[in-house]
Amino acid sequence: MKWEENVRKVVPYTPGEQPQKAGIIKLNTNENPYAPAPGVARAMAELDAERLRLYPAFPEKTDLAKALAAHYHIGTDQIFIGVGSDDVLSMIFMTFFQSDKPVFFPDITYSFYDVWADVYRIPYETKALDSDFLIRPEDYKQPNGGVIFPNPNAPTGEVMPLTMVEEIVKNNRDVVVVVDEAYIDFGGISALPLIEKYDNLLVVQTFSKSRSLAGMRIGYAMGQPQLIRYLNDVKYSVNSYTMNTTALVLGVEAVLDEAYFENCCKKIMETRGRAEEELAKRGFVFPKSCANFIFASHRSVPAREIFEKLKQNDIYVRWWNKERIENYLRITIGTDEQMEALYRALDQIV
Amino acid sequence: MKWEENVRKVVPYTPGEQPQKAGIIKLNTNENPYAPAPGVARAMAELDAERLRLYPAFPEKTDLAKALAAHYHIGTDQIFIGVGSDDVLSMIFMTFFQSDKPVFFPDITYSFYDVWADVYRIPYETKALDSDFLIRPEDYKQPNGGVIFPNPNAPTGEVMPLTMVEEIVKNNRDVVVVVDEAYIDFGGISALPLIEKYDNLLVVQTFSKSRSLAGMRIGYAMGQPQLIRYLNDVKYSVNSYTMNTTALVLGVEAVLDEAYFENCCKKIMETRGRAEEELAKRGFVFPKSCANFIFASHRSVPAREIFEKLKQNDIYVRWWNKERIENYLRITIGTDEQMEALYRALDQIV
Repeated sequence: MKWEENVRKVVPYTPGEQPQKAGIIKLNTNENPYAPAPGVARAMAELDAERLRLYPAFPEKTDLAKALAAHYHIGTDQIFIGVGSDDVLSMIFMTFFQSDKPVFFPDITYSFYDVWADVYRIPYETKALDSDFLIRPEDYKQPNGGVIFPNPNAPTGEVMPLTMVEEIVKNNRDVVVVVDEAYIDFGGISALPLIEKYDNLLVVQTFSKSRSLAGMRIGYAMGQPQLIRYLNDVKYSVNSYTMNTTALVLGVEAVLDEAYFENCCKKIMETRGRAEEELAKRGFVFPKSCANFIFASHRSVPAREIFEKLKQNDIYVRWWNKERIENYLRITIGTDEQMEALYRALDQIV
Repeated sequence: MKWEENVRKVVPYTPGEQPQKAGIIKLNTNENPYAPAPGVARAMAELDAERLRLYPAFPEKTDLAKALAAHYHIGTDQIFIGVGSDDVLSMIFMTFFQSDKPVFFPDITYSFYDVWADVYRIPYETKALDSDFLIRPEDYKQPNGGVIFPNPNAPTGEVMPLTMVEEIVKNNRDVVVVVDEAYIDFGGISALPLIEKYDNLLVVQTFSKSRSLAGMRIGYAMGQPQLIRYLNDVKYSVNSYTMNTTALVLGVEAVLDEAYFENCCKKIMETRGRAEEELAKRGFVFPKSCANFIFASHRSVPAREIFEKLKQNDIYVRWWNKERIENYLRITIGTDEQMEALYRALDQIV
């Protein structure tokens, strides 16, 4: 068909499997095993459906923006809210990476970065992690069109110290640097305080992991007001209302209940500590994780084999058929019960 | 700042005002004055908040896609679901309008079209409506990179007969033609049956108007499976999960309750009929509307003056400071009570 000549052709991102089968143990997409804060259910019960006939409020004017601003001690004009951090990052690629020079990111990292670069026709160059899967800050000193990396990194779970993050930001004052902190609440230290010092820094976080709201799609970027204004200009050129009313209302509760939030993160970190012991006992090696998953390789059994056998046992973990990491599994930290089931299954496999 | 050189600069779309003040009469953004179907409130009450910790299902696999497919007698592979029709249309611009030739749309039309063209760097050419604000199909016979128009048109409310729509589609088999039917349920005839005949036709609709769910952000495109696949490829390159769980669940109820839907549309059309009489009585002229609004001009009082005086009375309508339409007001059809308040206010102004 002739009209196909005008089609933007892309190789889309492949998200993790979302099996709808009941009773499976789902450790493949880094969801939180605990329910969202109790206030979320309450807010949903109290929300008047009649309100849904009206367009949602602009996110920057909502209680959600106010709650985030109060929580992080920044202004509401320093926050951009989107449909999960994927929406926020996608807007960032479209807004800030309009250079002819390549955007830099690690070779082993969140596998959406090169997809966004492709869909928006942005040149990019990946920088190889060292043999311990760590970023080498000197790689980010060459001229570039922007820098983005997750911290903790995905799918390795390894965290970079703040001084190294700052070194990268400082060496790249001519471009926008994005620290993707999807997993920061599980033991890392956020680069957020650096936004006061660097007008080229954006810190991106999400409600999908530590706040147990993957199903509501809420992410946000924090930076100086000028960066946020540019992001909003592009966002308002794409869709005036990306955040629906339920997301704007329910999200508030997940921010306000700090005790619940901290307790969930603590439980996951404790379970992760035990998982490190149990996996090591069974012959796995893995870098130290500061995320809600462990990126593990077995000393003798190939990752693919373990991945498939676990799936036969209705336990889903994540595996990529990709250079350098094809012998690793990314295992989300579930509840203690889910992890026990995993260990029992592994005992049959390895 | 040097990093600003890499910023995509755009003139964003300006959405209608969303005053948060209580007690106002809001006839400015074409929201439905009636609550969503009762099933929506019920589904919200029954939704288990625990489910929100998980990523949402892929829209094409949900009951929402199934309900739409059943309602329109098409396959689930013929439907693309997005965050309001703005998200759907934005994806369509990005996906299908990659030609060097200009995309065609009317000069007086939904004011987002040129914004999307600008943000995605798509060349475009507007075609002037005739003096009765009608599309001239012969304008769309020149070589182009795609065609898009709303039917009924916005902000005029005028509907084009299906034979004329088909003429445009037939004359443009080499490009994708998009019929934006946001307002079709208020008396127009949908081009949907034509998708079986034309593999280059997309019909876009929304839950924001006739289904009273502007706050949930649900829109959809219908066309042959190949078009939907291309759209999904781009969508999955931007954000794997754009539709949150609440939207996917609540939307179903708005489709299933056909009696409620039809009754709401009927009430709005009846109120529109009375509004035509009342506005004519007060010296307004307007084209025949097949939408949930009337695009009206007063014989002697400038639109801007009426717009501002109504606002002082807490009645919001829409006015554009834009060539050819600067003497028109777009008045959403509200409840009978809201319209009575409008007529009383107009009696003081005109």
